[in-house]
Amino acid sequence: MSAFPTVTAFEAALAALPEPDAAARDAATTRQGQLTKPPGSLGRLEEIAIFLAGWQGRARPRIERGRAVIFAGNHGVVGRGVSAFPADVTVQMVANFAAGGAAINALAAAAGLDLSIVPLDLDRPTADFTTAPAMSEAECLAALSAGAEAVGDADLLVLGEMGIGNTTPAAALAAASFGGEPADWVGPGTGVDAHGLSRKAAAVADGLALHRPHLTGAFEILRRLGGREIAAMAGAVLAARGKRVPVVLDGFIGTAAIAPLAMVHPAITAHCLSGHCSAEPGHVRLLDRLGLRPILSLDMRLGEGSGAAVAVQVIRAALAAHDGMATFAEAGVAKG
Amino acid sequence: MSAFPTVTAFEAALAALPEPDAAARDAATTRQGQLTKPPGSLGRLEEIAIFLAGWQGRARPRIERGRAVIFAGNHGVVGRGVSAFPADVTVQMVANFAAGGAAINALAAAAGLDLSIVPLDLDRPTADFTTAPAMSEAECLAALSAGAEAVGDADLLVLGEMGIGNTTPAAALAAASFGGEPADWVGPGTGVDAHGLSRKAAAVADGLALHRPHLTGAFEILRRLGGREIAAMAGAVLAARGKRVPVVLDGFIGTAAIAPLAMVHPAITAHCLSGHCSAEPGHVRLLDRLGLRPILSLDMRLGEGSGAAVAVQVIRAALAAHDGMATFAEAGVAKG
Repeated sequence: MSAFPTVTAFEAALAALPEPDAAARDAATTRQGQLTKPPGSLGRLEEIAIFLAGWQGRARPRIERGRAVIFAGNHGVVGRGVSAFPADVTVQMVANFAAGGAAINALAAAAGLDLSIVPLDLDRPTADFTTAPAMSEAECLAALSAGAEAVGDADLLVLGEMGIGNTTPAAALAAASFGGEPADWVGPGTGVDAHGLSRKAAAVADGLALHRPHLTGAFEILRRLGGREIAAMAGAVLAARGKRVPVVLDGFIGTAAIAPLAMVHPAITAHCLSGHCSAEPGHVRLLDRLGLRPILSLDMRLGEGSGAAVAVQVIRAALAAHDGMATFAEAGVAKG
Repeated sequence: MSAFPTVTAFEAALAALPEPDAAARDAATTRQGQLTKPPGSLGRLEEIAIFLAGWQGRARPRIERGRAVIFAGNHGVVGRGVSAFPADVTVQMVANFAAGGAAINALAAAAGLDLSIVPLDLDRPTADFTTAPAMSEAECLAALSAGAEAVGDADLLVLGEMGIGNTTPAAALAAASFGGEPADWVGPGTGVDAHGLSRKAAAVADGLALHRPHLTGAFEILRRLGGREIAAMAGAVLAARGKRVPVVLDGFIGTAAIAPLAMVHPAITAHCLSGHCSAEPGHVRLLDRLGLRPILSLDMRLGEGSGAAVAVQVIRAALAAHDGMATFAEAGVAKG
């Protein structure tokens, strides 16, 4: 049975978000205060260790089943000239993932993550959202459920995507969820020029105008303006929350995927870390709206979960310090 | 024979800084343009891979003998109440490093770095620089040489330090090298209060006033205002340059260590990466003056090379992508 058989099931999950384990989180906070360093001097490494303690429910969190899942989808809106690359590249890159030649293969391996690739009906692009809803209800539920199924037994989940043209639906989701002009949310993506940029803004404006009366809930926004890989990431974030699995978000598209959910239930971000702030200009704005502070800012703008995978290295460092350091008492060091 | 037997030898090394291998750097740049991603989309990961190619002299750089060296020293200026911790903590923390219980032990292991600890005459603090030169000429040359010797056969070098009170000499070095008021360069360090902060600023002002006529060259600035672990880091950076070994700088103190060298020869920073921007407020100012852009900004302020060690994880990710990815031709992906 699929994770989200009905819209009602999806909305029920979104309305019943579990909290982290306060006891484990508090124990981790206490431990950080006892380790041989001035209080707070490991900065965000301390915060990350405490965050993971809460969501994993153990005072000394660890990554034993870290998983990166890359969802791929194709987009009808590509017909409007919104990408620097042809739509064929989505399936070519999925083959590259399978062969081990993409950035995420190297970066996931370096971060000790199992990598799964989930292509979603690549031969059946979504409808062009400027003329029709991108997906039917059944298609959107199937994509959400595919995302949920990919969570499996992971103890840390990195979400990534591949989908030529998908910064345009991502911009539409951000605008529908948080308002603002299309120009606030579109950017160069993988490298369109100024003409491409204005085609992107026009597509977002047309999509918003067409669907406006129906953009009142998370599901309809995802269905009408999103895409399969985008809905899958939203489903994975929601299903991970149900299992209290911490998630590392990647760039603009993965962050935009949860914008409609956060519009309705802002607490959806509580089990999420932002892996990095991408060079796509809408991303920093989106992170700000979601109250997420990125771990890295390395001018990356590739997608594929690449920035999030690099951030896992920082998360591993945080856990290594949290678990491996001696306390003042153990080390016989004066506490100042 | 020591690396820097005389001041003349030190100055000669500083005046003859080797350049990176342009052919290896260019080959790495070409390779980045052929990998299966939009050009530039890995952002700073691309820059880091190209940087290391130039300094290691190979188109596909790698870290096989990554080394973190932590120098420790004690400071007479601690008698002026400039630290939240007693001077005894330096030797206690060196014991903690040896026992494997400090943050740098966990972080160096997580980053695959060999860790060496070099305590420098901990039972003989430097003189209080507000009343006398911190070191004699022989003491400063010995510290510079100890740093040079620690480079060994590393192919990537992380430099760190431990020395209760050493943000005060670091602030003095920055002020002597780049001007500005003492208050521009002092900060809370490991956690002094407002009174401690004003004692730090007063100590820097007194030191600058006492030594001002002699603060005309890198060696005299290091000798009069620095400390053994600080001079050792400067010596390590200079010796690493002679061998074209790339260096990852850590926080405020390690960056201040090369400020006097950069005042005379700004190119000294060319083989250095800034691992992170620390929470110590003078650090961002110093990085700006040195033209260094930090890899990480995680609010860390511990020292010990801790931020630089975490940055090595990002560097490893950069090299993994550079080396492991397929080219467009290899993968059969359309180049857009």
